[in-house]
Amino acid sequence: MPHLYETDGAAIYRRSFATIRAEADLARFSPEEEIVVVRMIHAAGMVGLERFIEFTPGMAHAARAALESGAPILCDARMVSEGITRTRLPADNAVICTLHDPGVAELAREMGNTRSAAALELWRPHLSGAVVAIGNAPTALFHLLNMLEDPACPRPAAIVGCPVGFVGAAESKDALMVAPPAPALIVKGRLGGSAITVAAINALASRKE
Amino acid sequence: MPHLYETDGAAIYRRSFATIRAEADLARFSPEEEIVVVRMIHAAGMVGLERFIEFTPGMAHAARAALESGAPILCDARMVSEGITRTRLPADNAVICTLHDPGVAELAREMGNTRSAAALELWRPHLSGAVVAIGNAPTALFHLLNMLEDPACPRPAAIVGCPVGFVGAAESKDALMVAPPAPALIVKGRLGGSAITVAAINALASRKE
Repeated sequence: MPHLYETDGAAIYRRSFATIRAEADLARFSPEEEIVVVRMIHAAGMVGLERFIEFTPGMAHAARAALESGAPILCDARMVSEGITRTRLPADNAVICTLHDPGVAELAREMGNTRSAAALELWRPHLSGAVVAIGNAPTALFHLLNMLEDPACPRPAAIVGCPVGFVGAAESKDALMVAPPAPALIVKGRLGGSAITVAAINALASRKE
Repeated sequence: MPHLYETDGAAIYRRSFATIRAEADLARFSPEEEIVVVRMIHAAGMVGLERFIEFTPGMAHAARAALESGAPILCDARMVSEGITRTRLPADNAVICTLHDPGVAELAREMGNTRSAAALELWRPHLSGAVVAIGNAPTALFHLLNMLEDPACPRPAAIVGCPVGFVGAAESKDALMVAPPAPALIVKGRLGGSAITVAAINALASRKE
């Protein structure tokens, strides 16, 4: 006997978001933040994630405004850039991942850093007013913070900083929130990752659920 | 002052895996399973994930053997296919995602199902002996199970079945484990996703940590 299951994509989204809103504690988020948090919980399959999510004031608004005005989205990993739903982007925004660009491996050796960090040096021409999406490498977020310590470095409009893992993830996100060089959104601690980061960008790109 | 942090990728992996092995309860896994579970925990940034991970007996061995003999890897989403580390693949294995192939949207309409499910119809020529990696859509896993109810449908060598979310994810993974049509690995319940699925494939592809 074939398995019977919900096959209507729109119905699946509706029921998923309704379940999340029934179970998660979303009271401390603004309406503009709430729809971002709901999508992040959805991507993680984890009610409770909301306890670790922090926005700087106005981040959701700043990121939306930047995307609506055509800001590029700078991604630390191909899983992030591939996950972003192009049809949700309000201005046919460029989605850029420089991780596999020629010269990154050599630059990483010269810098004595990871390829994920070195790849951010190639962001410089795109960084002004961009939306940053870091969903994998703590070294990328740390390197971004160090780049932005130079006042001459162009400023992004907003930073989704959700690297994941056991070495540097919690520390890099704490460092971002102690002195945010731009409006920022993080998942505190070890949790994070490409799916959660993509969900945040997809929610900031369009109010459509 | 620039932030100081670990910049040696190999050292980051070593410390991450050591932390996971110190904190997670891995006793019930075979040595061949354990290195897969460690990478899945790593990708999720979540000790405790191991409680939800289930293998059918011999799955890790079957998947490894298939990959070593050149099996293609069939992925339900681009985030999965893009995340697989090509340099870890033992036989320059093909990594296939048909989700955006021409005709999938139309086929989904004809089938009255999601594009994720319809895309699996295009797997048929590759399915015999393949390693399946479903990290996103419960409808894809349900449709695979329904395809495999036909004895004429080619059999994969192994199934990583880790769709994520609130509608159908838990149910589809339970259905897979009640009557596995091939050796299978799941994350029970709502948890799962592309990063965890990619981690499992990357661990099954190479014993190198």
